[in-house]
Amino acid sequence: MKLVIGDKSNSSWSMRPWVLLRHFGIPFEETLIRLGQPDTKSKLLEVSPSGKVPCLVTDAGEAVWESLAIMETIAEMHPEHAMWPSDAAARARARSVSAEMHAGFADLRQNMPMEITTHAPGRGATPEALANIARIEAIWAACLAKSGGPFLFGAAFGIADAMFAPVVMRFNSYAPTLSATSLDYAKRITALPAVAAWIDSAREEAR
Amino acid sequence: MKLVIGDKSNSSWSMRPWVLLRHFGIPFEETLIRLGQPDTKSKLLEVSPSGKVPCLVTDAGEAVWESLAIMETIAEMHPEHAMWPSDAAARARARSVSAEMHAGFADLRQNMPMEITTHAPGRGATPEALANIARIEAIWAACLAKSGGPFLFGAAFGIADAMFAPVVMRFNSYAPTLSATSLDYAKRITALPAVAAWIDSAREEAR
Ligand SMILES: N[C@@H](CCC(=O)N[C@@H](CS)C(=O)NCC(=O)O)C(=O)O
Ligand SMILES: N[C@@H](CCC(=O)N[C@@H](CS)C(=O)NCC(=O)O)C(=O)O
Repeated sequence: MKLVIGDKSNSSWSMRPWVLLRHFGIPFEETLIRLGQPDTKSKLLEVSPSGKVPCLVTDAGEAVWESLAIMETIAEMHPEHAMWPSDAAARARARSVSAEMHAGFADLRQNMPMEITTHAPGRGATPEALANIARIEAIWAACLAKSGGPFLFGAAFGIADAMFAPVVMRFNSYAPTLSATSLDYAKRITALPAVAAWIDSAREEAR
Repeated sequence: MKLVIGDKSNSSWSMRPWVLLRHFGIPFEETLIRLGQPDTKSKLLEVSPSGKVPCLVTDAGEAVWESLAIMETIAEMHPEHAMWPSDAAARARARSVSAEMHAGFADLRQNMPMEITTHAPGRGATPEALANIARIEAIWAACLAKSGGPFLFGAAFGIADAMFAPVVMRFNSYAPTLSATSLDYAKRITALPAVAAWIDSAREEAR
């Protein structure tokens, strides 16, 4: 199984399935395509029908693209890991917040781009980005209260947490004002070994 | 089970799960919240944590929101219907194109809003919207060629088709230049009884 990703410092969408696979110890080969180069688009289109990363290439040579679809597919391939909550109602909520992240929060993404090596507190704090952040904090608070934490759906890190991991990277860079609940959750995600490994590689890349 | 939706003429996201449920003959109650009214937001927030429709309220009173998450949840509740393709590789592709639709095509959505009663050929045909349309045509052509049609993943209408049904409504209104393959597919979707029922109600609403 091969996961094609973009630069680790910037490619927020790539981070999600990478962290998921790594966290669950699922072996995969990694191919990094540098974004923003003259030949980026042609390289992307060689592997990914959408011309975007991430793209999973299965052992049978089938391309699976879009971070959320890749993670649904990985969850199906590995029923031995509870990547979605095992309770049906919790699973429906986990899918709701994951799909909301997948389709939404355009203002946050645009104004506070993921740049892991950037530290610029206050940058990008437009009213629209702050409204996005307020909604994300509400999601986190509701999920953590209902599940008891420490992860969004309980004791174990899963797909919903992976969906929001790049948001945590943005919060680390731009340090918007957050509730204690959000700050604690962000710290836990940052400290997760799979996330720490991604951050380390992003720093290496920047050298 | 209750599905909360927006106006049938405009609420492209609401159309998807409604058409899916109707097509598979799954009984559901429907609650329509008129969008763009002074009390819309408060009404939405009473049922939907994101303040958006569609929102499914299960018999246990649990809210499930985001069109794609709602359809994944319905598919799980009704394993007797093949809403996703039964072949794993086809299912991964169906999830890829559905997630691509869920997160993407912002230019098309903005410039060619779904307005079922509008007939305005050529309107909204910006270069960015046309680029979105070219990608959608490529997705349809690839899926139909691989599956043999008449639906994206073969003989049966499913979630991937439901994801693109609002795009078909846009094509019907703004009539961009399309390949014969796309036009035929759009005709088949428009003629599907569940889609025709949605269109009829949208026209009623406008009276
Ligand atoms: N919704 C997609 C978004 C993928 C995306 O936009 N990827 C960016 C990099 S993070 C990309 O490949 N851009 C193409 C380019 O830079 O040419 C997903 O979830 O995977
Ligand atoms: N990604 C969401 C989008 C939902 C959405 O944007 N819904 C619109 C109507 S189509 C809405 O409820 N807007 C709130 C409003 O008009 O106040 C989904 O898939 O359900």
